[in-house]
Amino acid sequence: MAQPLAISMGEPAGIGPDLVLQLFAQRQQEALPPFCVFGAPDFLRARAARLGLDITVEETTPAEASDVFKRALPVVPVEGLVPDQPGQISPLSGQAVIRAIEQAVAAVLRGECRGLVTAPIHKAALYDAGFRHPGHTEFLAELCAAGGTPKLPVMMLAHGPLRAVPVTIHVPIKDVPGLLTKDLIVETASAVYHDLQNRFGIAEPRIGVAGLNPHAGEGGAIGREDMEIVGPAVAEMRVQGIDAVGPFPADTLFYPPYWRQYDAVIAMYHDQALIPIKTVAFEDAVNVTLGLPIVRTSPDHGTAFDLAGTGKASPRSFLAAIRLAHSMTEASKP
Amino acid sequence: MAQPLAISMGEPAGIGPDLVLQLFAQRQQEALPPFCVFGAPDFLRARAARLGLDITVEETTPAEASDVFKRALPVVPVEGLVPDQPGQISPLSGQAVIRAIEQAVAAVLRGECRGLVTAPIHKAALYDAGFRHPGHTEFLAELCAAGGTPKLPVMMLAHGPLRAVPVTIHVPIKDVPGLLTKDLIVETASAVYHDLQNRFGIAEPRIGVAGLNPHAGEGGAIGREDMEIVGPAVAEMRVQGIDAVGPFPADTLFYPPYWRQYDAVIAMYHDQALIPIKTVAFEDAVNVTLGLPIVRTSPDHGTAFDLAGTGKASPRSFLAAIRLAHSMTEASKP
Repeated sequence: MAQPLAISMGEPAGIGPDLVLQLFAQRQQEALPPFCVFGAPDFLRARAARLGLDITVEETTPAEASDVFKRALPVVPVEGLVPDQPGQISPLSGQAVIRAIEQAVAAVLRGECRGLVTAPIHKAALYDAGFRHPGHTEFLAELCAAGGTPKLPVMMLAHGPLRAVPVTIHVPIKDVPGLLTKDLIVETASAVYHDLQNRFGIAEPRIGVAGLNPHAGEGGAIGREDMEIVGPAVAEMRVQGIDAVGPFPADTLFYPPYWRQYDAVIAMYHDQALIPIKTVAFEDAVNVTLGLPIVRTSPDHGTAFDLAGTGKASPRSFLAAIRLAHSMTEASKP
Repeated sequence: MAQPLAISMGEPAGIGPDLVLQLFAQRQQEALPPFCVFGAPDFLRARAARLGLDITVEETTPAEASDVFKRALPVVPVEGLVPDQPGQISPLSGQAVIRAIEQAVAAVLRGECRGLVTAPIHKAALYDAGFRHPGHTEFLAELCAAGGTPKLPVMMLAHGPLRAVPVTIHVPIKDVPGLLTKDLIVETASAVYHDLQNRFGIAEPRIGVAGLNPHAGEGGAIGREDMEIVGPAVAEMRVQGIDAVGPFPADTLFYPPYWRQYDAVIAMYHDQALIPIKTVAFEDAVNVTLGLPIVRTSPDHGTAFDLAGTGKASPRSFLAAIRLAHSMTEASKP
């Protein structure tokens, strides 16, 4: 039996559990690969009933999950009380949300599960439970490092062959130029290149790099960073054997005939990477974390408290996240 | 006879003249409104011959141009020697390029032509002729001010109902936060609102405003400018009677179901406005200057020296610029 994907249940007040339940109900039509949910079985039963979904929740282990998946939603139970209160964060559930992530990561690291799809969390709801990480991804990087120094986790937004990676992420625009260094750009591109080869099965990845400034700085007329930082970073990538070109003006790089020349585009900041991908694929884009020892994807949306428990949230991004995690594990080299 | 549009011939080493000639040749299939070119007749004859286009160039005046348009390309001649050297800038042609713009603007201001479409220029080619303006648009604003203080010209990129306006334009990213003031944002939105009403025939324009920082600053967690500058600017717009909302995260604002709620989106910097529009409409987007006393559009591309004289440049953006200038003059209130 193939190993299942691990899904962490995410914030119970949000839409994550709803989408997992909906997708489980559609597993045959959608030909989904087997997965198991790390979470609270009673809570998932209550949420399924609330959504009017006739789903049997079966407590199990990763080893049995792929078999269980045919008849019931396999849930690897985590300790903790989780109330079914859509839209209302509860101090009760924080511990279970964190344990679900920890145990799912551990199962993937042990090889019991093939990869991880995380449902969205709500950071503020986890502070009482001791969550002190800048975000979900940094927490995963720490868990994967098992006490050592975490590697730089790299965020990629993917929609089919359109893959965009911001070098800086959740920082103010005013801080972006100061944070961009040649080393950071090269390290990011290097993680992307490595994972395109080893997780996406692309033998010779081509990387396009966007400039920081309008028109990629126009030879220094519009800022010097593209000449002094981004350009030298691209040169260094090439020295390291990475087939990278740029910096290109970001506004033309995402025109389909241009981005299609690259397996990934490295952008310098959040909106530069996310605007093009959300403009064309808002509901279907997947958030992928590169640079980890495990495959990890997540839907590209938040907890959407206003839609939780209603059944009205779109499962398309979560569906794409499951499919991509599966195909990344299929393509992964041992 | 309806007044013609004025087209300034632009840089003769570039593709502007090629596209004007190609579009004139297609004027019947494309049902183009009459236009006259301000430029050098002999040069245009030579370029037409080079492109293998059987076009008669007739020297005329704006008053006769719409009649001439049926049988020949109406050219309002400007003084100066203009060699036909695709891809090679020449110090000889600078004066003629500048005169073409000056005389075209004057003709529109006098009401002899209904609006202006400018072919792309190449600034460096004009320095010897004394061109000292930051760009084409600023030069036009000065000409329209006729010696007075120019109004703030506002750049809009348009593709059908998708209209994006950057508040700051050709400046380095590091300078953007410091340049953004409440007044500048409000002044920009005010020009957009005025022209949507008076040039686009939209009675009650709705304006969406993008935040500067990722997630529009997430309540101050990712930069304070959206709370302290952009938010108050939107509030001030509303006080002034402008139906504006925001700031919204820029990466979701350009998803079609969201931008379609607005007649224009105000973005804080160049790439934030241009990435989404070029991603979806690279070849068809039009550059529109708002805030001028005349209608002015231009294709959203440069001189493309490598394609000049080959006939291979796409005329789609130039075609869209002509159509939009015409429809803006039709919608304009007296």
